[in-house]
Amino acid sequence: MESLFSHMVNSMHAEDVKILMKQSSGKNVISFAGGMPNNDLFPVQQIDEIYGTLPLDLKKLSFQYGPTSGYPPLVRSIEKYLRKKGLPVDENKTLVTTGSLQAISIITQEFVNKGDVILTENPCFVGALTVFETYGADIQGIPIDEHGIKIDALKKKIRSLDKTPKFLYVTPNYHNPAGIIYTPERKKELIETLSGTGIILLEDDAYNDLYFKVEEKYLTKPMISYTSKDVEIIYTGSFSKILGPGFRLGYMLASPYIYEKAENIKQALDACTSNLTQILANEFMEQGKLEPYLEFLRKEYSGRKELIQNSLKKYMPEEITWNEPKGGFYVWLDLPERMNSTDIFKESLKKGVVFVTGRTFDPKSTKDDCLRLSFSNMPKEDIEKGVEILSDAIRKKM
Amino acid sequence: MESLFSHMVNSMHAEDVKILMKQSSGKNVISFAGGMPNNDLFPVQQIDEIYGTLPLDLKKLSFQYGPTSGYPPLVRSIEKYLRKKGLPVDENKTLVTTGSLQAISIITQEFVNKGDVILTENPCFVGALTVFETYGADIQGIPIDEHGIKIDALKKKIRSLDKTPKFLYVTPNYHNPAGIIYTPERKKELIETLSGTGIILLEDDAYNDLYFKVEEKYLTKPMISYTSKDVEIIYTGSFSKILGPGFRLGYMLASPYIYEKAENIKQALDACTSNLTQILANEFMEQGKLEPYLEFLRKEYSGRKELIQNSLKKYMPEEITWNEPKGGFYVWLDLPERMNSTDIFKESLKKGVVFVTGRTFDPKSTKDDCLRLSFSNMPKEDIEKGVEILSDAIRKKM
Repeated sequence: MESLFSHMVNSMHAEDVKILMKQSSGKNVISFAGGMPNNDLFPVQQIDEIYGTLPLDLKKLSFQYGPTSGYPPLVRSIEKYLRKKGLPVDENKTLVTTGSLQAISIITQEFVNKGDVILTENPCFVGALTVFETYGADIQGIPIDEHGIKIDALKKKIRSLDKTPKFLYVTPNYHNPAGIIYTPERKKELIETLSGTGIILLEDDAYNDLYFKVEEKYLTKPMISYTSKDVEIIYTGSFSKILGPGFRLGYMLASPYIYEKAENIKQALDACTSNLTQILANEFMEQGKLEPYLEFLRKEYSGRKELIQNSLKKYMPEEITWNEPKGGFYVWLDLPERMNSTDIFKESLKKGVVFVTGRTFDPKSTKDDCLRLSFSNMPKEDIEKGVEILSDAIRKKM
Repeated sequence: MESLFSHMVNSMHAEDVKILMKQSSGKNVISFAGGMPNNDLFPVQQIDEIYGTLPLDLKKLSFQYGPTSGYPPLVRSIEKYLRKKGLPVDENKTLVTTGSLQAISIITQEFVNKGDVILTENPCFVGALTVFETYGADIQGIPIDEHGIKIDALKKKIRSLDKTPKFLYVTPNYHNPAGIIYTPERKKELIETLSGTGIILLEDDAYNDLYFKVEEKYLTKPMISYTSKDVEIIYTGSFSKILGPGFRLGYMLASPYIYEKAENIKQALDACTSNLTQILANEFMEQGKLEPYLEFLRKEYSGRKELIQNSLKKYMPEEITWNEPKGGFYVWLDLPERMNSTDIFKESLKKGVVFVTGRTFDPKSTKDDCLRLSFSNMPKEDIEKGVEILSDAIRKKM
């Protein structure tokens, strides 16, 4: 496995990894698979500056245990940053987690017993699906359209169930894998639909800062900051897209009663998150290095988005459709129903192009007439060539 | 809580923390409570050197996701280090974890369903007790003596139980909190006792490197490296005592079938451990910085052990007995049965001295005629004064 970039296979379907390993050494592959920044995009220089000027006391502290709830200055920095976005920080409590996946894992452990129903979007972030499966949840997927989760389908699903789902997990902003952003109307409708049902809303907002146009930033307003709601909302965020996944830093914002048990669970998972990564992240925020870095990232990803859109328009067969994302990392290709992306994967891999197959994101692992292209991770100059090869593979399988 | 050093309260009983918070600001307290290195003992200069000369490619990689199993060069370094100690690395598989507590948590999640019996030593490492409680284990404690777990009591307990315990959790080398090390005979007897019972042995060896005399190093030989055994042994180790707890790095060594499910559980807990901390730890080992640092630590802790022993001899009332550890961080005080350490805690806190009460380490949270003194964390010059105050407090409560 080491000959492959591990991050290439992290979000891939297990069966597809087997195909990849059989057919390829992983070298010289053009990968649309990885849902993470390219190594060249990380703020290495900024962290160098921070480390180089870190006072000795803080350096020493970075080797030490910290509180389970998080390094207190980082908790304050996160709260300041969320308050600025309009989030209800004071009514809730903030828990620093070892990546936002740990927050999802904690919430699942807090609420889900084997056989309990939870709702997700379909398609759904595969990392979350892995967590839900590990803890034995009965996962019920709800289809989405270009504006968000389908409200009618959600209502119908809730009515059809014998027991109340423990929560609904959504990634409304720059959806992984579908690349959409919920409209404000859809967010409102979703909150109204859940009101009074007792179903918790688990709002995963890992891509919040990555809008392409500042005039569309208002679309990213998280549901937890909507007023007049009668829904318990747990909000999770991540440093993986705005600093680096290798720091394993995320957080959750939840009401005190949910927080309290969550902190106990975290205590039993890893006692606390690394002080070293927390101290560096806090300096990154406190020294005003985050905002300029986000400006850089937005330009970079927006440029990459243009490139992939132009290439798709140039090469894709007419029957294939896709979204134009307003932010984030992903383009989602809709194939004609008769096609399946696993066949295309095998075909395109022969020419050295990989992506993530549609079924990977389906809770039932079946719906496969779609696929995810990530434009965040590959070298920019490979995008056009990769799309051309993929288009040829699709044409061959039509 | 922030006014207290968080690491002071990390391993304390919840009730004792309440007492502490009521009676003291946490400032100017002499603490025998914290089971971790003093901030002044961390290898700050060595990590500075490593960071300062880290090639750009590795720096970039430190921001990125890594494989769930661990950063491959670190896995190799750990395996080399364990092989040198005689551990059966090749028959087993190594999983890097976010602190060794995560390894304990993973194993508990893998084997324990609510109500399942597990066995521990009594007293037992409180962090592990928290994990076992969180996952609903029925914890059965077995007393220990100065040579290790009491074999007769263990046999009796196993016979008395309706169902087979899932595992026995032990910390045989420089026990936390009791400070003892198992004799080789006791280790052998333990393995023989478990042979054929189906009870897994979970061997926590966080203090292995911290012997005081090189001629006693042979005593640290882990049970997983004993030959002719018919017991499944899972071995866990930690970087918390040999680099720094703030790095959140540990590992487990287990047979492939246990490893496989453990890796899946880790995937659902935090996807992977921080690449940044793993890369730094790997360089620390690969560049030959670990061994000289261990030499330094052994001298330091051995000197501290002398100091606390001399102070105890000088000040303690005659009725009080304690061990002289051969390594590690802890002295365990036995009080006359009529006394309890919680009363002493309240008394000594008035004069600004804290420690961890006996009941903290009892699975049933009752046995309190004992207490733990850690000599690893406090400033060296406070040891004598601290022991004097504690002795006065004990005398008052006699």
